[in-house]
Amino acid sequence: MKHHLTEKIQTVFGYSYTIGPYNKPVMEIQPGDTVIVETLDCFEGKVTSVDVKPSTVATIPFLNPQNGPILVKGAEPGDALAVHVESIVPRGPQPCGTTCLQRYFGALTPTARTLSEPFPEMVKKVEVTGDGIVWNKKLTIPYQPFIGTIGTAPLIYSVDTLTPGNHGGNMDLPDVAPGATVYLPIRKEGAYLYLGDCHAAQGDGELCGVAIEYPTTTTVKIDLVKGWTLDWPLLENDEFIMATGSVRPLEDAVRLAYDNLIGWMVDKYGFDKWDAYFLVTQVGRVRVGNVVDPNFTAGASISKKYLVPGGA
Amino acid sequence: MKHHLTEKIQTVFGYSYTIGPYNKPVMEIQPGDTVIVETLDCFEGKVTSVDVKPSTVATIPFLNPQNGPILVKGAEPGDALAVHVESIVPRGPQPCGTTCLQRYFGALTPTARTLSEPFPEMVKKVEVTGDGIVWNKKLTIPYQPFIGTIGTAPLIYSVDTLTPGNHGGNMDLPDVAPGATVYLPIRKEGAYLYLGDCHAAQGDGELCGVAIEYPTTTTVKIDLVKGWTLDWPLLENDEFIMATGSVRPLEDAVRLAYDNLIGWMVDKYGFDKWDAYFLVTQVGRVRVGNVVDPNFTAGASISKKYLVPGGA
Amino acid sequence: MKHHLTEKIQTVFGYSYTIGPYNKPVMEIQPGDTVIVETLDCFEGKVTSVDVKPSTVATIPFLNPQNGPILVKGAEPGDALAVHVESIVPRGPQPCGTTCLQRYFGALTPTARTLSEPFPEMVKKVEVTGDGIVWNKKLTIPYQPFIGTIGTAPLIYSVDTLTPGNHGGNMDLPDVAPGATVYLPIRKEGAYLYLGDCHAAQGDGELCGVAIEYPTTTTVKIDLVKGWTLDWPLLENDEFIMATGSVRPLEDAVRLAYDNLIGWMVDKYGFDKWDAYFLVTQVGRVRVGNVVDPNFTAGASISKKYLVPGGA
Amino acid sequence: MKHHLTEKIQTVFGYSYTIGPYNKPVMEIQPGDTVIVETLDCFEGKVTSVDVKPSTVATIPFLNPQNGPILVKGAEPGDALAVHVESIVPRGPQPCGTTCLQRYFGALTPTARTLSEPFPEMVKKVEVTGDGIVWNKKLTIPYQPFIGTIGTAPLIYSVDTLTPGNHGGNMDLPDVAPGATVYLPIRKEGAYLYLGDCHAAQGDGELCGVAIEYPTTTTVKIDLVKGWTLDWPLLENDEFIMATGSVRPLEDAVRLAYDNLIGWMVDKYGFDKWDAYFLVTQVGRVRVGNVVDPNFTAGASISKKYLVPGGA
Repeated sequence: MKHHLTEKIQTVFGYSYTIGPYNKPVMEIQPGDTVIVETLDCFEGKVTSVDVKPSTVATIPFLNPQNGPILVKGAEPGDALAVHVESIVPRGPQPCGTTCLQRYFGALTPTARTLSEPFPEMVKKVEVTGDGIVWNKKLTIPYQPFIGTIGTAPLIYSVDTLTPGNHGGNMDLPDVAPGATVYLPIRKEGAYLYLGDCHAAQGDGELCGVAIEYPTTTTVKIDLVKGWTLDWPLLENDEFIMATGSVRPLEDAVRLAYDNLIGWMVDKYGFDKWDAYFLVTQVGRVRVGNVVDPNFTAGASISKKYLVPGGA
Repeated sequence: MKHHLTEKIQTVFGYSYTIGPYNKPVMEIQPGDTVIVETLDCFEGKVTSVDVKPSTVATIPFLNPQNGPILVKGAEPGDALAVHVESIVPRGPQPCGTTCLQRYFGALTPTARTLSEPFPEMVKKVEVTGDGIVWNKKLTIPYQPFIGTIGTAPLIYSVDTLTPGNHGGNMDLPDVAPGATVYLPIRKEGAYLYLGDCHAAQGDGELCGVAIEYPTTTTVKIDLVKGWTLDWPLLENDEFIMATGSVRPLEDAVRLAYDNLIGWMVDKYGFDKWDAYFLVTQVGRVRVGNVVDPNFTAGASISKKYLVPGGA
Repeated sequence: MKHHLTEKIQTVFGYSYTIGPYNKPVMEIQPGDTVIVETLDCFEGKVTSVDVKPSTVATIPFLNPQNGPILVKGAEPGDALAVHVESIVPRGPQPCGTTCLQRYFGALTPTARTLSEPFPEMVKKVEVTGDGIVWNKKLTIPYQPFIGTIGTAPLIYSVDTLTPGNHGGNMDLPDVAPGATVYLPIRKEGAYLYLGDCHAAQGDGELCGVAIEYPTTTTVKIDLVKGWTLDWPLLENDEFIMATGSVRPLEDAVRLAYDNLIGWMVDKYGFDKWDAYFLVTQVGRVRVGNVVDPNFTAGASISKKYLVPGGA
Repeated sequence: MKHHLTEKIQTVFGYSYTIGPYNKPVMEIQPGDTVIVETLDCFEGKVTSVDVKPSTVATIPFLNPQNGPILVKGAEPGDALAVHVESIVPRGPQPCGTTCLQRYFGALTPTARTLSEPFPEMVKKVEVTGDGIVWNKKLTIPYQPFIGTIGTAPLIYSVDTLTPGNHGGNMDLPDVAPGATVYLPIRKEGAYLYLGDCHAAQGDGELCGVAIEYPTTTTVKIDLVKGWTLDWPLLENDEFIMATGSVRPLEDAVRLAYDNLIGWMVDKYGFDKWDAYFLVTQVGRVRVGNVVDPNFTAGASISKKYLVPGGA
C-alpha cells in the first residue's frame, strides 16, 4: 500500500526536532508499505536567498526538521526495520538548493572552543534538478541524492536531530541513496521511523557542515525483519554491505563500523571472526559521513563479491 | 638514466629504520632519472611461514626497513620532489605475501593502553602475482599494489619508519600506486628519498595493522619542482588531486588534508578560498590511509573535472 | 522552606533514567528552598553482594536512576539555577558502597569496539561512613562525597543519564561536593532539576567506570539567578571558580572548559580576553571528571585569589 | 662530583633542537654526580621585549633549545636514569620571563587546520624572582618552577624538542619540580640526557602554548638504576608516585599514564592488577601537562599513603 506523507499532513503534527518516543505518530503503516514523503531542507526552507543570514532563521534546538514518526504495525524491540530508498526527487521553486557558512560550525571553521571570531555568514543558492546541480556558469556537478537523517526512536531517550548514534539520525552518509536498504534497530514498539534532511550532493565529511540542502519527495518502502536485533544501523545495496558507527573521535567511529561489519559477516555470512578481520584489512572500504556533527559517522563496507568465508 | 637499487646494494649500507638526514646516501641521481628499487616487506622477509611468531623476528625499533636515502642532485629546501610510481612487481619465492596479528597492534585489538591480554599471534601467508592474491580456495582478491612508506628527510629530525607526518613516511595510502605522482617537501639538500613497505592490497585503514606485505621490484621516476614549497605531501593521478594529513585524532587528519587540498586549489588552480571550501564540501573524497600507526593518515581529493573555479 | 524527596515519594513517580522535559515533576519548590534528597546508587542498590553480576541486574537504558524532576517556580529559560550542596550522608545497610568491573565498560577495558572478550565481572563491596571507606584491613580511604549526576532539562531533548553535556548530567566531577554551588543553565520553564549517582570517593577520570557508588541523603539549597544565561554548567566554592566542558575527545573538553572559564572571567570579573587567556595559561587548573562515559568531562578552574584583572 | 654545564660550554657544542643519539656529548659524568645547568628559554632569549614578534626570531625546527647530551658512564639499554631535581633558579636580566601568542599555536587559537587568520602576535614580559612573578601592579603569582623538557636519546630516532613521548621530551609537566625524581628509560649506551625549557609557572595544559619561559640555573643529581627497564618516564616525590603518557587524543594519554601507573604498582609495590585498577579508580589523580604540543601529556599519580596492597 502507498501512503503520502505530505508537507500538509506533517505540518498538522509539526515537523520534529527530536528522534524519540514522545511524539504522536503521524501515520500508521503495515510492513511492506510504501511511503512518499515530502521533506523540508534543514533550514525549513527559510534561507530563501543569499541575503538571508542563517543565524536569523535557524536557532537551536529548532534545526533539521524531520518527517515522522511513522508507526510500523507489528514492529517490536528486537526486530529490525528495513527501509528501502526508492527515489529522491527535488521539490519546490528553483534555486531550491542551499549551502552556507554558519557561525562556529563546520570542520575548518573556528569553533566556540576557540577565542576566534566566527567566519562571515555566507549563502550560496543553486538550482537542483535530476540532471545536476548548477554550481557556476562553467560547472554542473552530478545529482547524487541521499537521505541525511534517518532513524528510529530510542525506548526512552529523545535525541536531537543533529546527533547521529546507534538509532541512526544525522549520519550524513551518502550511501543512504536510491537503491540502498537501510536496516535500523527497533527499540520501541511500532519502530517510530523519522527521516528528513536530504542532500542533492555531498562530499565525504560534509566539510563546511552544509551539503546541498533541499526539499524533496522521497519514496521509501518499509519492511520488517522479525527477530534480527541490531546494535547499530546497517546498509546494503547491489554492490556491498556496510555497517555504521557514530561517535568521537573519528577513529573510534571507524573501529566501531568495522567491528559491526565483522559481526555481520560472522553472524549472517558464516565467517570466522579472525578470517573476517584479516579480509576486511585487505579489502574493506571506509566512507566518512560527517566530521562536523556532535558525533562523527563512518561507514565500513565490503564488496559482496568478497563475502566468501574460507576459515582463519 | 636508470638506476638499480638492488637488495645487494642496499644491504651494503643497511636498510634504514629511520627517515632522516643522518644516513649516508646509497645512491646519487639526477632529476628525471628512474630508479628500480628492490624493497623488502615490513618484516624483512623473516615471517617465512605461519609458524613464525612475528614478535620473535620483529622488534622495535627494527621494523619496516626502507630503501634509501637516494640523494637527488640540485634538490634544495623549498623545492618539491615529484616521485612518479611506474610499476610495482612481486619478488621472491611464493607465497610471498604476509598478513598477521601482532601483539597489541591493530585497530580492533587490545592495546598496551588496556589491561587486556593481547590476541594470539596468527600469520596468514598468501601467493601474490600480478593476477591476484590467492586468499583461499574460493577467493582471489585483486592485485592493487602501492608504496606504503615513502618520504624525504627532515632537516634535523630522524623519524621512525612507523610514523607518517609532514615528511610522508608510513602513510599506508593506497593511492600511492602505479600511475600516481607523489609530491614530497624537500627540507634537506639532496632531498634524501626513502621508500619501502609495499602492499599488494590493503583496505581503508589497514585495520589489523598488517596489509598484504611483500617484497617488490618498484620502479619510480624522480623529478624536481624548483621553488614549490610544500608543507605536506600531495598526490596526483589521471583522475584527481589529493592532499594528505597525518596526525591524531583522525578528524584532525581529515581537516588537515582538506585544508591542504584547499590551499592547493587556491594556489595552483585559481580558486577563491570560500569557493573551494564550498565545492569540496559537495564533491570532496576522503581516503583513510591507516588508523593503526602513531599518526593516522587521511587523503582528501577532488576530481580533476571539478577544478573549475567560479568565484565565491 | 525544607522539602523531603524521600525514596518513597520518588518511587511513586519512578526514578528517572533520562534528563528531559517529559517527566511529571515530583515536587514544586520556591527559589531559596532546601531539598533533602534520598538518592539511590547507580545500580538501584541491586548489586547487594560480590556474588551479583552487574550485567544481570543493570541493563541499558535502565541505568543511573535520578531523583526529580524538581520544578522551581519562576525559573525561565535564560535564567541560571544555583544549587548549593550542603551535605551528603550515607544511607542504608552496610557495606553500602559498591565498585565493580562491568562488561566492556571502563577506561582500561576492552571495549565493544575491539574483538576482545570482556573482563570478568568483579564486584567489591565496601563499608562507607563519614569516617572513611574501609578498603581493606590495612587501608581506609577518605570519605570525599559528591554528586555524580546533576542537571536541568533541555527544552525538547531527553538525554540518557549516562551522558554529560551542556545540561550537566553525568559529569562525575568530584568538585560537586559539599560547600560548592553548581550553576546550571535553565532551558525549560520550571528548570526541572534532576540529581543522583552520588560517589563516596572517586579518582580523576573514574578509571574503571565505577566509583564508590552508594545511596545517600543529599541536602541541597536551590536558588535562582534571573537573567544569567549559561551555555554550560559552572561551579564555585570558597577557593575557586570552575567551568565545565563535556565532549570527546578529552582535549576538546579541556578547551571548552577553559573557554567557558575565560568567558566567565570576562563577563563577571572584568578581564580583558587576552589577559585572561595569558593568566589561566599560568595558573589554571584542570580536573578530569570522567574518561569513561559517552562524553568526557573536564573542569577548568582558577583560584579566586588570582581574579585580579590587569589588562592585556 | 659537581659539573657545571654553563651557557658557554653548551654554546661550543650548540644547544640541541633534537633529542637523539647523533649529537656529540657535551660532558661525561659518573652516576651520582651533580650537574648545574644553565638553560635558555624556549626562544633562546630572543624575545627581549614586547615589541619583538616571536615569528621573526623563532622558526621551525630551531625551537626549544636543549642542554646536553650528557653521557652517563655505565648507562646501558635496559637501565633507568634517575634525575633528581634539586633546584631551579632564575638567571639573567629582568624582566626575564616571557609569555606570548604565537601564530597558529595554542589550545584556543585558530590552527593551521582551519581557514582562519591567526591571532595577533602578542608578548608579555614579566619579572621572575624566587619571591614570585609580577603579573601586574596588583597581582604577583607564585614562583613554581619546573623543567619543561627532559629526556634521554632513543636508540636510532632523533626526536624534535617539541614532541613528548616515551623518551620524555617536551612533557611540560609541572611536577618535574625541585624535590622530584624523574625516572627515564635508557635506550642508548651512555643514556644521553637532554634538558631545558624551564617554566617559572604554568597552569594545567599550558593553554596558550607558552608558559612563563625563562633562563635558569638548574641543578640535578643523576643516578643510575641498573636493570630497571622502563617503557615510559615515571616520577616520584615525597607525596606521590606518578606515571606519564604522551600521545593524542588526551584520553589515550590518560589511559596510558594510568596503565603505566598500575604496572608500577604491580611490579614494585606488590599489588594485584585488579586491586590496583579498583584503587586508582577511587584515589588516582590526573595532571594534564600540555594540550598544545604534537603529543599531549598526562601524569597519573597515587599518593604514597595509599600504596597498601590488599588483594582484589
